[in-house]
Amino acid sequence: MRFDIISVLPDLLVSPFAHSILQRAQKKGIAEIMVHNLRDYATNKQKSVDDYPYGGGSGMVMSIEPFARCIEGLKAERDYDEVIFMSPDGVTFNQTIANELSGKGNIMILCGHYKGIDQRIRDLFVTREISIGDYVLSGGELPAAVLVDAIVRLIPGVLNDETSALSDSFQGELLDAPVYTRPADWRGHKVPDVLLSGHEAKINEWRHDQALIRTQTRRPDLLED
Amino acid sequence: MRFDIISVLPDLLVSPFAHSILQRAQKKGIAEIMVHNLRDYATNKQKSVDDYPYGGGSGMVMSIEPFARCIEGLKAERDYDEVIFMSPDGVTFNQTIANELSGKGNIMILCGHYKGIDQRIRDLFVTREISIGDYVLSGGELPAAVLVDAIVRLIPGVLNDETSALSDSFQGELLDAPVYTRPADWRGHKVPDVLLSGHEAKINEWRHDQALIRTQTRRPDLLED
Repeated sequence: MRFDIISVLPDLLVSPFAHSILQRAQKKGIAEIMVHNLRDYATNKQKSVDDYPYGGGSGMVMSIEPFARCIEGLKAERDYDEVIFMSPDGVTFNQTIANELSGKGNIMILCGHYKGIDQRIRDLFVTREISIGDYVLSGGELPAAVLVDAIVRLIPGVLNDETSALSDSFQGELLDAPVYTRPADWRGHKVPDVLLSGHEAKINEWRHDQALIRTQTRRPDLLED
Repeated sequence: MRFDIISVLPDLLVSPFAHSILQRAQKKGIAEIMVHNLRDYATNKQKSVDDYPYGGGSGMVMSIEPFARCIEGLKAERDYDEVIFMSPDGVTFNQTIANELSGKGNIMILCGHYKGIDQRIRDLFVTREISIGDYVLSGGELPAAVLVDAIVRLIPGVLNDETSALSDSFQGELLDAPVYTRPADWRGHKVPDVLLSGHEAKINEWRHDQALIRTQTRRPDLLED
């Protein structure tokens, strides 16, 4: 699977993609993550990629021409399944979308900045707009990293333990039950007896009950669907 | 405002905090962002910070002792308004929470990994659990970066243009209207006439209408509240 991310701050994305699961997926050749510097596609001498908004108002707007040049250059090399724009007014990202996107081949991701991007970029090139949540961030780079991380870990062969991704929260209908590890007694705070019992059926029952209680308490909306 | 982030992958967070608004806020002395390597607080020779889950099952669980040592060391130096654990089963982060947290002084953020962290850490130290959305990620580092970014940009003096944060999506009740910049005609795709009219009242009316239409189409739930 290949990701092409277009950003005005490519250096911001260096360390998130150089560690953990994303590093491993790239080393194994399962995922290829390319970050393109939008400024390289600017056409004027100042390498500017933004300009004042038509109609006035605060903030700068990212221009169409550098995005168009970069996107068209990439499209000339291969086909893309999706051109995604990370935007607070996009469809809210969730595990269902992550699952779906993990089956794709080539994905392009546009990172916005400043006051936004020229609407014509969205109208002419973008196939999908995704928001990672109802909050405002400085740019689309962290959302792009979040999207790629959520997708890549689902590709078979990326996680060492194949069952691990399947038992995550949101893959089933319940949140995870509490987990514990050694020591069994930490300053008088003990691990629940059942987990030390070795009785597998009872442990599974306890975990299911705890997951249900946690979901009912914290996210009753997940049980309504 | 000060953030202390406890992570097993501190290097992952280097570039997100070294660019853009987060870099500017730190240079201006408005925000201090410290990342602590959890492994430095491990007590055994292997510097391990995780162990097998009690009761069996896949994945590793982060141990209480290294977190406890790091948290207690930090608390001995200063008071914390919140100790936040980034977790998919936490309260879903939104702009209201970002606004609230931007008024705090010292915030500690714990990043989980693997199958989760020992429940006793959550019971004994954590004051607040926050999720950035309904999807599973490799660890709490990207969510921590998202949280810090959303909060820091709200602190007065961080953004150059003070009005910019206030006019963002989610700060009002509507999504942003479309934005455009030069050229007015790009390969035949034109900027709406009204934005070129210079007629401020009409421009404001158009923007309000567009914002309303976009919100009704994309996020009718925002209008119901």
